[in-house]
Amino acid sequence: MLDTYQNLILPDLRQMVAEGDSHGVTEFCRVVHPVVMGEMLEQLSDAEVWQVLDHAELDQRVEIFENINLRRQTELVETLDSGRLSELLENMSSDDRVDLLTRMPSGRREDVLRMIAQAERNDIRRLLSYDENSAGSLMTTEYASLPADITVRDALNRLREQAPNSETIYYVYILGDHRCLEGLVTLRELILARPDAVVSEIMQRDVVRLYVTDQRENVAQELARYDLIAMPIVDAENRLVGIVTHDDALDVVQEEATEDAYLQSAVQPLDDLYQDSPMLTILWKRGVWLLFLSFVALLTAKVLDHYRIATESGHLADQAPPDLTTLILLFLPLVMASGGNAGSQSATLFIRMLALSPTDSLNSPPVVSRRVQMRELAIATMLGSALATLDFLVAWLVLDKSPAEAGAIATTVFAVVLFGTCAGTAFPLLFRRLGMDPALMSNPLIAALVDVLGVVFFYEIAMFLL
Amino acid sequence: MLDTYQNLILPDLRQMVAEGDSHGVTEFCRVVHPVVMGEMLEQLSDAEVWQVLDHAELDQRVEIFENINLRRQTELVETLDSGRLSELLENMSSDDRVDLLTRMPSGRREDVLRMIAQAERNDIRRLLSYDENSAGSLMTTEYASLPADITVRDALNRLREQAPNSETIYYVYILGDHRCLEGLVTLRELILARPDAVVSEIMQRDVVRLYVTDQRENVAQELARYDLIAMPIVDAENRLVGIVTHDDALDVVQEEATEDAYLQSAVQPLDDLYQDSPMLTILWKRGVWLLFLSFVALLTAKVLDHYRIATESGHLADQAPPDLTTLILLFLPLVMASGGNAGSQSATLFIRMLALSPTDSLNSPPVVSRRVQMRELAIATMLGSALATLDFLVAWLVLDKSPAEAGAIATTVFAVVLFGTCAGTAFPLLFRRLGMDPALMSNPLIAALVDVLGVVFFYEIAMFLL
Repeated sequence: MLDTYQNLILPDLRQMVAEGDSHGVTEFCRVVHPVVMGEMLEQLSDAEVWQVLDHAELDQRVEIFENINLRRQTELVETLDSGRLSELLENMSSDDRVDLLTRMPSGRREDVLRMIAQAERNDIRRLLSYDENSAGSLMTTEYASLPADITVRDALNRLREQAPNSETIYYVYILGDHRCLEGLVTLRELILARPDAVVSEIMQRDVVRLYVTDQRENVAQELARYDLIAMPIVDAENRLVGIVTHDDALDVVQEEATEDAYLQSAVQPLDDLYQDSPMLTILWKRGVWLLFLSFVALLTAKVLDHYRIATESGHLADQAPPDLTTLILLFLPLVMASGGNAGSQSATLFIRMLALSPTDSLNSPPVVSRRVQMRELAIATMLGSALATLDFLVAWLVLDKSPAEAGAIATTVFAVVLFGTCAGTAFPLLFRRLGMDPALMSNPLIAALVDVLGVVFFYEIAMFLL
Repeated sequence: MLDTYQNLILPDLRQMVAEGDSHGVTEFCRVVHPVVMGEMLEQLSDAEVWQVLDHAELDQRVEIFENINLRRQTELVETLDSGRLSELLENMSSDDRVDLLTRMPSGRREDVLRMIAQAERNDIRRLLSYDENSAGSLMTTEYASLPADITVRDALNRLREQAPNSETIYYVYILGDHRCLEGLVTLRELILARPDAVVSEIMQRDVVRLYVTDQRENVAQELARYDLIAMPIVDAENRLVGIVTHDDALDVVQEEATEDAYLQSAVQPLDDLYQDSPMLTILWKRGVWLLFLSFVALLTAKVLDHYRIATESGHLADQAPPDLTTLILLFLPLVMASGGNAGSQSATLFIRMLALSPTDSLNSPPVVSRRVQMRELAIATMLGSALATLDFLVAWLVLDKSPAEAGAIATTVFAVVLFGTCAGTAFPLLFRRLGMDPALMSNPLIAALVDVLGVVFFYEIAMFLL
């Protein structure tokens, strides 16, 4: 429901920026939810974004900036002077700023790090050092911690001091010597305990924890398994080095599901959302697998030819040259695989895009969706051309087909790739509009349609060209 | 790390139960994490489970029971007398007990409901009435709420009273007349506020909320978008009717990802985890789509035949009967589609099973995994037989092939379904063992292998039989 709201207020914000109404912008940033602000700013130009953020108070500026997607964040800081950038980074939460710094060119990163205070800089450098698939890469170091030997009253007072610098104060970690993790006490337990009870009496000692080197999927799985708000992450000496909060775990689950769906349909995972990724990136991440799979399919043609010659040599030995039926037989698997694979890729990309988009925002601005559909068509044209060229050359030069025959194969491949992509794009959108699940048997259904239409295309094109 | 621990202590628990050491069992239930207890009990017989639970204190009994998977819960309560069942239900959290009641036969449900106190019963009936895909079906009614006009000091005192019956007290909803949702105050804000401040001064008024009729995916999406611990759910009159907590939203995201992956590979979604689902259920949920897709593939044979006759009539008119090449041409798409689809189903089921299993528990007891692999092989044999029978009958009776030809087609289909399933099972497990993502291009890779081997199988079998 905030999405329609967002469409209503974005023009107001644009107008304020255009008129230079700095007081209005400041007030706007204070009142509107930072998540909504972040999403709105993604739709403005770099200059407009900075005009808005410069007029927001520091706290709001940081929170709004954190809610802009990482790709836009990276673009936005490219032109920002190092002084303002370091101020922003110093105030960002420790996990978000490391994500941004990881994306920046290393020269720029070093420039900016030099301007950041020593303690913060050490924290950043340590977080930057963890493998991107490890628990360490998800952590924030802003957790609340207490010693075990103080009273509940003191604990609550100390917690109030730590609150501004803690991502959550609902889980408080009890640390011993050398910051070793000894226990956990929840804010709920603190609130319910007698004020003069000692923390060590009420704390949980058997705390679920993971190692900084554990896989990031594990963090999400274990957090889900134990229904935790945050998972403590320790090093090999059981020293607490950070926590992963429930919201970051939820993001991991969604990212992993997307990655698996992509991989399963032979799309190399994208760093950003599909709709935010540059076209060349998508082209590369799909094309590389399609080309590989085409080589395997061409192998099928080789195998088919081997068997055909072996079986026909008896009764049809001298009936050369091979007829249309043979050509179709040899290359139909290639045609079907090309169309089916390209279609599955499109379907998967659209299904995951729909699964991750807030429902309202997709219904309301169909313009975005049309732009994405058009881009998909352009991608299909380019992928189809690349595959057709490859198949033409292999059929002509390697498999000794005539240029006309190779041309028929290539044209058919181009046609089915285009058709498969259109079907892969249309089915999820259609099913969704009908109130059904966009994922409904998309891959086999597209493959089946490509199979039937592939035959029709192949014969019609071959009869026309030969 | 708790998984290896679990394997170490399960024999102890079994021994205590066998020896009737009730004191030991009670202590065990108090000390071991209820999540671990729940998972351990899933491996015991019904009688053993009740021996353990009967000796646990009520609080622990309920919490452990809630952590047993829903399918086992349903089995366990089948033989439980209504008195003990109603006691259990009265103490379970409101969302968990409704999930269980939904699964029970309606006669039994009514019997038990009659024994539950009026207020609880009304709560249950209302929650039972929501559509299973709606936000309402995910809700718990155990939320913390306060009026707006009390001081922070009073608020904290009232919250202490509500804590035992609230799923979370970190978000406190501020309700006006008729329980209308007017605001939100977090426990963090309450802790940081002056004790004599009035709640209405510090509360957030622009609260993100969803309607009870909204789709359940939306709840998870919006909760992820705003990084919330719980999402308030209101009715059409803006009255607060429940909340959905972060852990339930995480479950929804995983369930939806699984559902989409299944649908995309033409497996009708399962109610339980793959490894927990009965074999007949899996057989049905896969077979129904495979049969449908086979009909489409048989259509391809029809279309191919139409074109073959049209193009050959010129120069090969009287060359009857159609040769081996023609037979292969007509039915190769069917062979490839059958093997590819069956293989994709297996791969998807295994990939999601791996994605949802805690990493440790899969590495440690490979026995489970072997049982599941064997079952998958049995399923493949049955699906292959069903498809082969269908294809034999259609090829023989509808498409006028000789019994030998139809037999060659059917045998090949059986072989590729078996091969596709084995590949679909083996690749995710192999990739995972190699430290790669189990999802790695499984579907197109399996399809490509099935394509090549389908040709080999088809020719070899046809040459043998004809």
